[in-house]
Amino acid sequence: MKLLVGTYDGAAAVYRVDGAQAVNLTAALPQIGADLSALIASPELMAQAAAVEGAGVAVAEITPELPVNAPGKILCLGLNYIEHIKEGGYDIPDYPAIFMRTRQSIMAAGAPLVRPTCSDKLDYEAELMIVVGKGGRHISEADALDHVFGYTVFNDGSVRDFQRKTHQWTPGKNFDQTGAIGPFVVTPDDLPEGAKGLKIESRVGDEILQSSNTGNMIWGAAQTIAIMSEFTTLEPGDLIALGTPPGVGHAKKPDPRWLRPGEVVEIEIEGIGICASPIMDEADLAKAAE
Amino acid sequence: MKLLVGTYDGAAAVYRVDGAQAVNLTAALPQIGADLSALIASPELMAQAAAVEGAGVAVAEITPELPVNAPGKILCLGLNYIEHIKEGGYDIPDYPAIFMRTRQSIMAAGAPLVRPTCSDKLDYEAELMIVVGKGGRHISEADALDHVFGYTVFNDGSVRDFQRKTHQWTPGKNFDQTGAIGPFVVTPDDLPEGAKGLKIESRVGDEILQSSNTGNMIWGAAQTIAIMSEFTTLEPGDLIALGTPPGVGHAKKPDPRWLRPGEVVEIEIEGIGICASPIMDEADLAKAAE
Repeated sequence: MKLLVGTYDGAAAVYRVDGAQAVNLTAALPQIGADLSALIASPELMAQAAAVEGAGVAVAEITPELPVNAPGKILCLGLNYIEHIKEGGYDIPDYPAIFMRTRQSIMAAGAPLVRPTCSDKLDYEAELMIVVGKGGRHISEADALDHVFGYTVFNDGSVRDFQRKTHQWTPGKNFDQTGAIGPFVVTPDDLPEGAKGLKIESRVGDEILQSSNTGNMIWGAAQTIAIMSEFTTLEPGDLIALGTPPGVGHAKKPDPRWLRPGEVVEIEIEGIGICASPIMDEADLAKAAE
Repeated sequence: MKLLVGTYDGAAAVYRVDGAQAVNLTAALPQIGADLSALIASPELMAQAAAVEGAGVAVAEITPELPVNAPGKILCLGLNYIEHIKEGGYDIPDYPAIFMRTRQSIMAAGAPLVRPTCSDKLDYEAELMIVVGKGGRHISEADALDHVFGYTVFNDGSVRDFQRKTHQWTPGKNFDQTGAIGPFVVTPDDLPEGAKGLKIESRVGDEILQSSNTGNMIWGAAQTIAIMSEFTTLEPGDLIALGTPPGVGHAKKPDPRWLRPGEVVEIEIEGIGICASPIMDEADLAKAAE
């Protein structure tokens, strides 16, 4: 099933996407609510959602919202494609680099991706993202995929000079409204096992910035869930980002390719969809909010 | 004011501590609820809380709970005392190392601090912690202390081999139930400006493990709030840990000094209180829960 959380006609709801049309599941089953939390918590409700019939609205008319409004945590892999590790000057590791993002750093696909006033070194990162279904600790790799509710698209927007102010990446990965998520969440039954073998791309207009395949990841979805649940209890609705392929802006030659206000950056993953974000300067976002 | 969130006679409540006695504020003002969130949100409610009269119960009879049950984020400074930076083999930085902790990694003072099955390299870190009051972004250093609700004690329990699996510290800083907070939150009017100049110590029984002073921090409370709010919007109830002084277990000579099950590790900060945690093996915690 392909799900979309969004607003149409003023009310946030969960939609089931069938091609270019979307059926309002929340209208049919109000207990679904305004994000995926209730569906994640209840396989029975998911079964009912699959059976909902009704007239669709055009997907293009729906303004995306975050799939999970208040994820308990957002865990991210930093270096998960060998060619990206090399372009960043890092050694090939035997354990993934893991960092976290705040709730304030993420926003829905379609919303402005904000270039902060203090830096012009704003970079894109195309990533596959897991929406955790069933929670747990000490999840084995063999059982791990049973803990996936679905997969979505993530742009792990990074402010590179702040990311490298020290060895800990937290500041550069956590500027407000720099990480775009969605808009679609696709359940595992509609994708290859572990969402492997999917083309993943980032671009601005006709300019292809990254182009790779999720099959090139060192740590796949199952292994990542096993590694993370060794130290932390995963909870329903947690988000896990799986790292980015080569081609990020800071490594472009001869000059870095930073994102600029007015551009629209798109991340596409085959079978899931496109996460598009217009780049906006922080000062202009503040003006727009006045 | 010195506040304590805890359970006595089965109900969680907020207490005002006066010496060895504590007055149940929630009983007098039910809108205060079962943690500090409502008091953080309302200066008027704080003023009413200060005026509550009533019979106290013994502080020792109250089982501490987390001061804020669901903090929006937990931001931590990694290297903030020069002598600790040297013992870890790091260079003196001009910007703080910042990492985050999950909600699952923290627990109240008094609860077991869990040594995971996968490692025996469990370490203590005595730290001053800010409970954020008024939220904001781009907070100047001059205004920053107006955003502090109070100060508490933190033991930033760390699993060192997992902390250093890669350059990103997240796994070793985020094992479930390794970061102890509390039990007391002291408002700024009862402490020196920025909670500077306070003795800070960690010990097991008579063994003093760390002994320093919060005046030795490179980045104080005000500067840290300014630095963090440059990239993220701080929210009421967010927690900010300010780093640990020298004397951590992994740097002890000739051998590291890891925490062992059965020990009780105490962190004390002058004027705030003692955060005591019994060390328990993960396997024993699981048995105790059965």
